[in-house]
Amino acid sequence: MVSLVGGGPGDPDLLTVRAVHRLANADLVLYDALVSPAMLGLAPRAQRFFVGKRAHRKTVAQETIEWLMIRAARRGKRVVRLKCGDPFVFGRGGEEALALARAGVPFEVIPGISSAIAAPALAGIPVTHRGVSSGFAVLSGHSECAYRPILESITPQSLTLVILMGVTTRTALAAFLIAHGWAERTPVALLLAASTPATQVWTGTLAELLNSSAIPTGDGAPGTLVIGEVVSLAAELAHTVFPAAERALMQRHS
Amino acid sequence: MVSLVGGGPGDPDLLTVRAVHRLANADLVLYDALVSPAMLGLAPRAQRFFVGKRAHRKTVAQETIEWLMIRAARRGKRVVRLKCGDPFVFGRGGEEALALARAGVPFEVIPGISSAIAAPALAGIPVTHRGVSSGFAVLSGHSECAYRPILESITPQSLTLVILMGVTTRTALAAFLIAHGWAERTPVALLLAASTPATQVWTGTLAELLNSSAIPTGDGAPGTLVIGEVVSLAAELAHTVFPAAERALMQRHS
Repeated sequence: MVSLVGGGPGDPDLLTVRAVHRLANADLVLYDALVSPAMLGLAPRAQRFFVGKRAHRKTVAQETIEWLMIRAARRGKRVVRLKCGDPFVFGRGGEEALALARAGVPFEVIPGISSAIAAPALAGIPVTHRGVSSGFAVLSGHSECAYRPILESITPQSLTLVILMGVTTRTALAAFLIAHGWAERTPVALLLAASTPATQVWTGTLAELLNSSAIPTGDGAPGTLVIGEVVSLAAELAHTVFPAAERALMQRHS
Repeated sequence: MVSLVGGGPGDPDLLTVRAVHRLANADLVLYDALVSPAMLGLAPRAQRFFVGKRAHRKTVAQETIEWLMIRAARRGKRVVRLKCGDPFVFGRGGEEALALARAGVPFEVIPGISSAIAAPALAGIPVTHRGVSSGFAVLSGHSECAYRPILESITPQSLTLVILMGVTTRTALAAFLIAHGWAERTPVALLLAASTPATQVWTGTLAELLNSSAIPTGDGAPGTLVIGEVVSLAAELAHTVFPAAERALMQRHS
C-alpha cells in the first residue's frame, strides 16, 4: 500500500490527521525538498529517502522514484510518498498515481493544504472576496512554456492570479503581464516560506515587481505570487492577525 | 482570540492537526452547514451554535455571526469559527476577518483542505497533469452573476475549471460553456459529498451534463464540478485507488 501524501505548506501542524497517522506507521518515506526535519520526525519507524530536486545535486529520476515505491509496496512495506502542498497540484502526483495503477499497486491520495490558497491566507489575503474577486487561477511560473499559454488565455484583471514556482522568473512574469494588458498598479504579494519561521511577505505593485532588485527571494525558499486587488486586503488583515507574518512584513518601497 | 478554521471537505481525518487542537480547547464553536457531528464531537467542552444556511430555515445574518464572535472573544472565550473547506475560498472568511480586525479582536486563520482540489483528487482527478493541464481556475457556480464574468474571461479549453456550488445550476453552466466555445465532448466530473460515506462520482461530457436528467444531485450535498481533459484520468485512477469512490462510481450513460 502506497500513500501519496500532501505535506502542506511546511508547518507540521498543517498536516492532516490522516497524514500524521500514515507517517507514524510508515516503513518507508520518500520525501521531496522543502519537507522539514520536524515533519520527518513524525515517521520514527521509517527508512527515509530524499528524492527531491536541489540545486547543484544530482536528482533522482522520476522513474526511479516510481520504481522505489512499487518495489517497496510489493515487499509489503507501508510506503508514504511525501510531497509539499497537495500531491495533485504541480506535484507530479498524477504521474506517480498512474505508475502505481499500471503496476497494480493499491494506493491512496491524501490531499494536503496547497500553498496556492494557504500562503495568501496566512498573509491576510483571501483569494476570493465579495465584491473584489469571485475566482482565482493557479498556474506555475517555472518557465515561460509553463505560464505563457495560461496567462494568454485569461483576460487581464478578471480574477486573482496565484503563481507557484515564480520567484526566479518574477521579473519576466511582471513584464509579460504588463505587456498583455495588466495594469502596472495591480497589487502583488510575494510570499516566501509560508507557515514556517522563515516566512517573508513582500507587497507592492506589478510595476514594482518588474523594477525592484530589493525584493526578497528567500534563497531557494518556496514562493507564491498573488496578483490582484485582493492583495490590498493584507494591509488591514496582516497586522492584526498573524504575528509571524507581521514581524516579517516588509514596508512597501516607493 | 478567534480562530477562523477550515474544516476541509467533510472527513474529520482531513482536518489539520492545528484545527483539531483548537476545537479541543474551544469554548464556543460557530459552525456552518455541512459540518458533521463527528467533527463537532472534537470540541467536547464547547458551546456549539449552528450559523449556516439551510433551505426553508431562517439564516443567521452575517452581522450576527460577526457580533457573536466579537462578543465571545471580548468575554475571554476561545472561539472557533468552523467553515467547510478553506475559510478564504468563497467562505466569507475575508469579511469575518475584516470585522474582527476592525473590532480589534486578535484572530488567526487556519487553512483547510479545499474541496476545489481535494474532491477531484479523491476521485482520481489531478487538477494539473503534465501534458494535459498546466493550470486551473476556481469559481463559484452559485448564480450567473457569479460565474459569467469569470467564464467570459477564460479562453475555452485552456485550463481546468473547478466550479464550486454549481450542482443546481449545472444545466445552465453547461449551456453557457458550450455557447462560449467549449467543446461538447469536454470531459466533466460531478463530485458529491467528497470524502464522506455519501460520496458520489459522475463523469461524462459537457453535452451529457446539459442533457441528462439522470445525473445525481445529492439532495443538498456539497458538489464540485471539474471540467477539462484531466477528468479522463479518473478512468485509470479511480478504480485502482479509492474504494469509496469506486463503489460510488456511476456508469457513464451513453
